[in-house]
This record gives sequence, structure tokens and C-alpha cells, in this order.
Amino acid sequence: MDLMTSLQEITKLSHLYYERQWMYATAGNLSVRDRSSWEQFWITASGKHKGELKETDFVSVSVADGTLVSANEGLKPSAETSIHQVLYSQMPDVGSCLHVHTLDSNLLEFGVEKTEGYRDIPIPPIEMIKAFGIWDEKPSLTMPVFYNHTHVPTIANEIKRYFVTEGIPKVPFLLIEGHGPTVWGKSIAEANKHLEAVHFLLQVMARRV
Amino acid sequence: MDLMTSLQEITKLSHLYYERQWMYATAGNLSVRDRSSWEQFWITASGKHKGELKETDFVSVSVADGTLVSANEGLKPSAETSIHQVLYSQMPDVGSCLHVHTLDSNLLEFGVEKTEGYRDIPIPPIEMIKAFGIWDEKPSLTMPVFYNHTHVPTIANEIKRYFVTEGIPKVPFLLIEGHGPTVWGKSIAEANKHLEAVHFLLQVMARRV
Amino acid sequence: MDLMTSLQEITKLSHLYYERQWMYATAGNLSVRDRSSWEQFWITASGKHKGELKETDFVSVSVADGTLVSANEGLKPSAETSIHQVLYSQMPDVGSCLHVHTLDSNLLEFGVEKTEGYRDIPIPPIEMIKAFGIWDEKPSLTMPVFYNHTHVPTIANEIKRYFVTEGIPKVPFLLIEGHGPTVWGKSIAEANKHLEAVHFLLQVMARRV
Amino acid sequence: MDLMTSLQEITKLSHLYYERQWMYATAGNLSVRDRSSWEQFWITASGKHKGELKETDFVSVSVADGTLVSANEGLKPSAETSIHQVLYSQMPDVGSCLHVHTLDSNLLEFGVEKTEGYRDIPIPPIEMIKAFGIWDEKPSLTMPVFYNHTHVPTIANEIKRYFVTEGIPKVPFLLIEGHGPTVWGKSIAEANKHLEAVHFLLQVMARRV
Repeated sequence: MDLMTSLQEITKLSHLYYERQWMYATAGNLSVRDRSSWEQFWITASGKHKGELKETDFVSVSVADGTLVSANEGLKPSAETSIHQVLYSQMPDVGSCLHVHTLDSNLLEFGVEKTEGYRDIPIPPIEMIKAFGIWDEKPSLTMPVFYNHTHVPTIANEIKRYFVTEGIPKVPFLLIEGHGPTVWGKSIAEANKHLEAVHFLLQVMARRV
Repeated sequence: MDLMTSLQEITKLSHLYYERQWMYATAGNLSVRDRSSWEQFWITASGKHKGELKETDFVSVSVADGTLVSANEGLKPSAETSIHQVLYSQMPDVGSCLHVHTLDSNLLEFGVEKTEGYRDIPIPPIEMIKAFGIWDEKPSLTMPVFYNHTHVPTIANEIKRYFVTEGIPKVPFLLIEGHGPTVWGKSIAEANKHLEAVHFLLQVMARRV
Repeated sequence: MDLMTSLQEITKLSHLYYERQWMYATAGNLSVRDRSSWEQFWITASGKHKGELKETDFVSVSVADGTLVSANEGLKPSAETSIHQVLYSQMPDVGSCLHVHTLDSNLLEFGVEKTEGYRDIPIPPIEMIKAFGIWDEKPSLTMPVFYNHTHVPTIANEIKRYFVTEGIPKVPFLLIEGHGPTVWGKSIAEANKHLEAVHFLLQVMARRV
Repeated sequence: MDLMTSLQEITKLSHLYYERQWMYATAGNLSVRDRSSWEQFWITASGKHKGELKETDFVSVSVADGTLVSANEGLKPSAETSIHQVLYSQMPDVGSCLHVHTLDSNLLEFGVEKTEGYRDIPIPPIEMIKAFGIWDEKPSLTMPVFYNHTHVPTIANEIKRYFVTEGIPKVPFLLIEGHGPTVWGKSIAEANKHLEAVHFLLQVMARRV
């Protein structure tokens, strides 16, 4: 898949997620690794209306250090680019990262402390977790939940610390508390499949009585 | 109705159910009995995006033993084909089976044990049950709920055991706990009518306070 | 507005209500008084899929006694025609009645007894009740809630008894418990406005904690 | 942006909000300041179906005193024009005000007394508040909530009293209890961004358990 096709595919997802109320206001950011240059990724520019995103509203960023590679005039990378950069650098086979703000992810409260940084939270073993490629019967799984530092690079550092300390999570996503989930996958299609399953899972967690 | 028309009809339902968030990720499977060859049925192939399903994404399977009859190259039957096979073989007049993952079916928890296999659970006597062809006033109805074995043929065997032991359920559906409902009907249209009523019923059960 | 325009307008509402999940399976029935012959009304035929309703799927019925006036071949009036007949005969200025099955109307439980027949239930004085033409500040309003007899003419008789005993309700709707609301208005547009407000109100009643 | 473009943009939002069930029945009113004549604003006429609003369904009103400047025949300003007038007169840089009736704003009950008039209510410090331009980490924010007087100019006076006494709220919106939120922004696009964030916030407040 060439770059333009990738950007079209992710732009289409942006419109779809906006309709699903996952990217209200200007919330969220979507990125895809450049298949012709694996050491950079393309991410939505800052402050764009996600229901009206265009293929030209992306900027490219270095996987190695997060520096800007190229951008159309007037565009700057999403404020949360550093999180994507950590994910691509920690997981060389990941081709796309998707971050949205869903209602249910904001209904859940775990009380992760600022000094603590992150905590593993159990998730219910519903059938939908098979979308993550996990086929065990009623497995005891957890998801990593991070404190929502205003200084985004601090969140990115905490995520890096998690990967170094705990390893790659068994589930292909993480949650920033009071903020929203970030998922990843080998391709845009796989990342989207993961996000739909995560949305389903978080709804179950937030609404079971 | 010829086979192509049936597959078009069920493909259209697949897109509709995806939009309703009943077939997120790659969840769910839909099937229809072949009217020109009643001893086989057509079921969605494994791993397809249900919002983008095509009429060619089905494989045909024997009602008698669940073996594959025919499939386009690269397609294999849904992992849950054995459940459909049991339903068609136990109910000779059934023409379509629909299985989806709805949120509300995952909010309900009954604690069916693995060793127990299944349990009958009472359902509220709301007006909507008339869609199942049940016209009694405030009837005491139940629905069969099954344990979600990872080994799907074990679920299929439990369903067969239910039908042999308890008979055909009075309601045209069953539920696999933490997984989703499976409905059936004489035609695709009737199965769809049943599924809409089941969705309504499960919402009432999960959300009544 | 001539008859065909009215039937087109109400058919369009049927499709809209189906999309809103207010007329799932084959639930609900919609009717409009014939402006060229005020003594008859047109109501949706029995058993039709409400998302695929056509202008020819209506039959005409006498306001005076509920007998069938005319119907295309194969059509019979909705099973709940007698309720519409009572409403048109009790309220000479009503031009349209709309009955749907909404989730929230089924979440609410009041325990109206069969022998009791009906009961007035308080409704919260939210702003939305101004859609009913009620402009008092925080008024103490009630809505009539009826027992859901399987024999529909018994419900119709109870409604007639209510109108004779209690008078026309101050709010332009009634609720059948575990079943759904029925609204009315001078025109289809006014009845639709009332139904949207009733849906909002019933959601507030069912979901306030 | 010229006037016709503004009215087209706000008309499009009206249709969108109707589909989102934020402007059911005839609820809500939308306005935009006239960029060629900053001392007047255009507001939706009274009693219009918001899903069918047209660019000609607006009337212009004086910012100074709320008197009607011009209107097509048969149109009168929204009953809640006085609230918009106070907001434009108190905030000279505001270019658009949007008022809708959302379900979640009606689920929240604060018990503001009539004699009290208004009260500041704490809001949770979720990520979405950054859409309001507030970048503090976990700030202690409040929103002003007003008593829903039937006499709308009394609400407008209370809002004016709030602005004079307490100053401009730090968040770009206010809530009328049992009624709905009103948001503002420099442009229609900014006001819309604020409304989407407010809707998200009020859902979190109403549904967190």
C-alpha cells in the first residue's frame, strides 16, 4: 500500500470516528508508518476538525527521535506525537497507532496517582478479546492505565518506562485515565479492528452493574 | 428466492449490523440454508470485516456433518460454523441463523458454570416478545444461556444436548454468555425480525434498574 | 394536504422511526385522519417491516366503529387499530396518532394492575414539556399509564373509560406499560413533535439516578 | 465570512444537531453575530423544525437591547432571544451562541432554587476540557447553572447578574437546569467545538457511577 492510499484510508477512519463521537471537538490523533521509509510516520496535524480531515492534513515525523520531517505550510504535529513516537520505536512491527476520546473510557476511574505513573488494571474475559489474537479460555488479562500528565512527553516517558520494565502489553492498547485509549496494529485495518474491540470492551467495563 | 438473492440479502444485513455496532472488529457470523439444496447452508467466511462483506465471502457447509462443501480460494468457514450446523440439523424448517455480538448481551452476567454447560434464564414478558409469535399475556418464558467454551464444537455439543434434552426453545434464540445471541427463523427476514426483538429484549434486561 | 401527501409523510416517518430503533421487528403502528373524509382514518397494515413501508401499505378504517373501509388485497389493519379508533372518536380535532416501541418506555416499571386498568403517573417538569403547549413553571403533570392486556380491544376500552372518567389528558400521549407510548396531534407534524418530546421525557424518567 | 455563508453554516449545524437528537421537537436556538454589522445578530425563528431549517428562517436582533431589526414575513425571534442578547452584549468578542436540549443535561439535577437564581457547580477535570483552551493539570473548574424560570427574560437577567458579579465564566458555556446548555465562541466553528466538548463533559457527569 503506497503512502497516499494509507493517508486516504486513515482519513476515512477519521470521518467515521467523528460520526461515532470518538473524535469530538478536535480530540484524538491518528498515525500510520511510512511503508517506503519505515523510520518515519505520518500523524494528523494539530487542531483539525476530525470530521473534515483531508489527506493533506498530516505531517511526517521521525520514529527515532520524534523530530518533524516534513509538513505542509501552517501545519504542526499533534500535541500527542511523542506518544506515537514511543509506540513505533518500541514496537518495530507496528504500522499504525490510533488514539481517540470515547465516552466510556472517561466513565472509568481507577485513581492512578501522578507519582505512580501507571497501573495494570484487570479486564473481563469476554469473547471480544479474541480480536486481540488471544484465544485462552477466560484469561486473566490486564491493560496498562497511565496518569494523564498535562505535559504529554511525560506520559510518553512513562509509556517507554512501562515497555522497558514490563514488556510489550499482551493487549494491543493502553489507556490514559480521563483521556482515552490508544491502540496499535501491523496495519491500519488491524489497528481499526483492535479499536473497535477496545471500544466494546471499555463499554462493558463502564456499564456492567 | 435463489441463492444469489439470499446472499445479497444477508450481505446487506451484515453491513446494517456493522453500522449498529453488532459486528465490530470481525465479530459475528451469518448463514442461510440453500433453498435449492436444503442439506447445505452458506456461512460467512472467517475473519472478514463485516462492514465490507461481499456476496462472494460465503462458503457452503453440509448440514449433516458440518464438512465444507465449497469455498472460493482463500476462504475458510467461520470458527463458529459448528453452532450453525447443529441448529440447522435440529430444526429442519429453519432457513437462516444470525449470530452477533451486542453490547447488552455482554453486560448481562448469569454465572453459568463450565461443568453446568447451560441454564434457562427468565425473560421479562414485554410486548416485544410477540415478535417471537408468542401471544400469551405475561408468559413465564426463559431463554437458554450457554457457557462460552473456547473450543466452539463443545458449545455446539452443549446446544445439541439442550435440544435433545429440553426440546426446541420456545423463543427462537439462545445466548452464549459474555459472547452474544444467536437467532434463527424460517427466512432471513424472519431471523432478522427475531434478532431486532432479541436486541430490544436484552437491552431491557441489562438496563432496567 | 391531500391523502397521498399525508401517506407519503407518514411513510417517511416510519422509515425514520425504524432507523431510530423505535419500530424494530414489526413493532408499532402509525395513522392519519382522512382530511377529505374526516370520519375515516388510514393506518399501517399488520406485520409490515417499518423500515420498508410503502404508501400502499395502509388500510382505511371507520372512526365511528373501527370497521374496515378499504384495503389493498392481502392487507389487514394493525392489531392495535382499536386504540387509534378510540383516540380519533374521543378527540375530534386529532389528525394523526403515532404508536412506537421505545427502549426507555420499556425500562420504566409502574406495576399497574390488570384489575386497575390504568393509573396516572407523575412526570418531571423539564423544559421539553413546552412542546406539549404547557407553559406553566414546574407544573405537577401526570401521564396515563395502562395495563398491557393481550386482548387489545380491552386496552382500547380502558382508554375510552379514562377519557370518559378523567377527561382528555393534559399531555398529548399515553403509555401502555412494557409496550410503548402512543401520541396524537392535529397534524402529522404536530404528532411527530409530540413523539420526539415524549421520547426525550421517557429517557429522562428512565435514566435519572 | 459573509452573512449568507454564516447562515448556511449554522443551518447545516441545525440539521446535524437534530440528527444527534439535540434539537428534538422544536427545541433549541442558534445564533451568529453579523460580521458586517457587529451590533446585530441573527437567530433562528420561533417554532421551526430544526431538521428542516432553511437559511431564510433567521431574524436579526439588536445586540444593545434585543429589539427586532428585520425578519421575513411570519417569522418571530426565538422565545429565548434575550439570553443570546445578554451573551453578545456581555462578551464583545463572541461571534456565535448555540443552545440545545441534550438528554444528559436533563439527567443532571442540582436543585438550584428559584430565589437563588444560579450556582457554580464543579466539573471533572477530564482531558476534553482542553477544548475550552484550559491547559492546567486537573484544574478545579466550575460551570454556572441557572434556575429555569418560565419567564425567559428573568433567566437573561440572572445571567447578566452573574457576568456582572462573578465575571465571564472560565468555561465557554452555561447550563439552565432541566433545560439545556448554551455555549459561545468567537466563530461558529469554535462554538461548535465547545458544544461537542460540553456534550462529552455532561455525559461524563451524568453517567459516571
